[in-house]
Amino acid sequence: MSTQYSTVIVRFGEIGIKSHQTRKRMVGLLVRHIEAALREHRVPFSKVRREFGRVFVETSHAKDAAGVVSRIFGVVSTSPAARVASSLAEILTAGVELARGHFEPRKTYAIRARRFGEHDFSSQDIREQLGSDVMTSLSNLELSVDLDEPEQTISVEVREGNAYIFVETVNGVGGMPTGSQGKVICTISSGLDSPVAAYKVMKRGCVPVFVNFDNLPHMEGECNDIAVRQAEVLAQYIYNYEVKMYIIPHGPDLTNIIENTPGKMTCLFCKRNMLRLAREVAVIEDADAIVTGEIIGEQASQTSRNLRVISDAICDYPILRPLVGDDKVDVEHLARQIGTYRFAREATSCCSLPPRYPSVQAEPDRVKSAEENIDLSLLQDEVANARVIILRDGN
Amino acid sequence: MSTQYSTVIVRFGEIGIKSHQTRKRMVGLLVRHIEAALREHRVPFSKVRREFGRVFVETSHAKDAAGVVSRIFGVVSTSPAARVASSLAEILTAGVELARGHFEPRKTYAIRARRFGEHDFSSQDIREQLGSDVMTSLSNLELSVDLDEPEQTISVEVREGNAYIFVETVNGVGGMPTGSQGKVICTISSGLDSPVAAYKVMKRGCVPVFVNFDNLPHMEGECNDIAVRQAEVLAQYIYNYEVKMYIIPHGPDLTNIIENTPGKMTCLFCKRNMLRLAREVAVIEDADAIVTGEIIGEQASQTSRNLRVISDAICDYPILRPLVGDDKVDVEHLARQIGTYRFAREATSCCSLPPRYPSVQAEPDRVKSAEENIDLSLLQDEVANARVIILRDGN
Repeated sequence: MSTQYSTVIVRFGEIGIKSHQTRKRMVGLLVRHIEAALREHRVPFSKVRREFGRVFVETSHAKDAAGVVSRIFGVVSTSPAARVASSLAEILTAGVELARGHFEPRKTYAIRARRFGEHDFSSQDIREQLGSDVMTSLSNLELSVDLDEPEQTISVEVREGNAYIFVETVNGVGGMPTGSQGKVICTISSGLDSPVAAYKVMKRGCVPVFVNFDNLPHMEGECNDIAVRQAEVLAQYIYNYEVKMYIIPHGPDLTNIIENTPGKMTCLFCKRNMLRLAREVAVIEDADAIVTGEIIGEQASQTSRNLRVISDAICDYPILRPLVGDDKVDVEHLARQIGTYRFAREATSCCSLPPRYPSVQAEPDRVKSAEENIDLSLLQDEVANARVIILRDGN
Repeated sequence: MSTQYSTVIVRFGEIGIKSHQTRKRMVGLLVRHIEAALREHRVPFSKVRREFGRVFVETSHAKDAAGVVSRIFGVVSTSPAARVASSLAEILTAGVELARGHFEPRKTYAIRARRFGEHDFSSQDIREQLGSDVMTSLSNLELSVDLDEPEQTISVEVREGNAYIFVETVNGVGGMPTGSQGKVICTISSGLDSPVAAYKVMKRGCVPVFVNFDNLPHMEGECNDIAVRQAEVLAQYIYNYEVKMYIIPHGPDLTNIIENTPGKMTCLFCKRNMLRLAREVAVIEDADAIVTGEIIGEQASQTSRNLRVISDAICDYPILRPLVGDDKVDVEHLARQIGTYRFAREATSCCSLPPRYPSVQAEPDRVKSAEENIDLSLLQDEVANARVIILRDGN
């Protein structure tokens, strides 16, 4: 018997409430992603095991593994744990050892216990006896019990023949396993919002295909590089699926727009064309939707009216806008968690065309009639000239 | 001079970074909503005043007012405050009095101070002298200073001739003032998600028009009542704008769907028709968009593929899905904050038609061809027979 960590408890949330068939498929995906992630991060492990409602990773590097696994979509939380046989004596010994290794002096503590299966002891037995053993064995630490808001905790989870004992729980990223949904086209720029939008849809199980637009000559350098770096960060969340990025030249149609339409509508026509370009990629990639980072009211082109004016440029693919009802502070917060905050650059610095007084209440009919002067055939050439980068090879 | 609260400091977030013209309009809306909210909640006040970056409410009921105002869209936080002239002597006296009224014994504290305008003292002077005066005057409380993580705080904000002194900050709901964006059609059911979706888009400044579908005879009673109650809760967040709710009979076209199309596609055709019905209301109401509570992967009809299959039922209005990338736990959390959690009922209990094995990967072409057997002309009658309720009269 050892009280060293030997296991990671992996908890998943919504997967657990799916039908048997769906749950089985999703947990299967999750297990494959966990194995791939541990290999990629070079964390040794002997086995990834599923039981009802949980996945267990058997590894002598449980702390490292818990950190890696907690960043896989579908994982709600992880705990590095000691595993012993499900006898009260072994649980008590291991529990006291874990407390000895982790508890700090003069703080409050509690014992938590859950039990599944048939045993000759109850959860309450564990709580009482381990609580008392810890108090006695570690009397030098001057601990006190607080069941409501303890500063430190020993948790015991007994499942049939095994008992898992742990002191910490690492928050996971949540969501659903990658590949449980279809491909989506994630438009991504050098800005703050679009990577967060992509992340939220990826988190729900979709496989991203990134699309970035190269505004040259209507911008200064670097912007595409920043977009690629943002996509690279996001692609790190995907295991076992190829992740591609299309960089589409968008300069020719922008030039055509500014030469042939009223300046205050430039951003609207630009966005309509970006949606059309993204749609072409959706057709090529057999994707289900197009994802954008738009937030109502964030910019002139993102008023509720202008979202209407932009959206009907395409009809046969839905435009998913996961941030549409979020505040900027929420998006910033998530960007920091994801790891894209440091890259973000004002979108306006990546395009020299936004007018000083943009239209905030465009009329659908006027937009349609002005658009007749734009040469939409340019878009086909632009897609044909796209540069495609493989961010993850899927193996 | 009085050290009683006499003022509420109202802070807004994103409004502050808008252009001069937009900001002026938005703060104007905010002030009107604050006045209307205080009147409605019968909180007496003498004036709502705007200054650069802040709104101030002058009231002898500052604590009540802070609570009401913090639930108005656009408000990031509020603080009930004492207001004195901006002399160091008055600030010190008022600060000590406030500490005497609010500080608890044997806890840590800090003084925070900000200053705008010309004064013969600095922020640092306030921090040092008020810190020292509090320590001396309240020596019986045995306080100690902790500048990093104080348990209690006196904050001083000096703006030109006024100084505001406060001990607490109430979190606001955030977002943008109602009416800064256009009308949106918020589809709403008796379920958990749709009211949260509506809330998020309302929070961004949109005025909601609620649409609920009456599935009779394909459901058991009560469901529409629950939807109405949920809409009533949401409507309480709207001031100065009329809020309507349409309850549209959806039974006739559902009957037509089940009689003429494959059972596993029922939910898809139902959703396509709900979008068409919502679109009719959008035309009537001159709205900018249709809002739904869909979350990728939450139900069979909400796979990424099925969202695609559903969405192209309408093309000329965008479908906004603010929850599309959220996890169920996030939605539950927000529903509790909003006040709709207690109403929510499983959507399935409000419709008897969902098939046991629904299609999760419908083919767009097959859906289109099956839909040719549906009589879409029924929808016009249904909209014509809608019951319209006025939830808020806009005055």
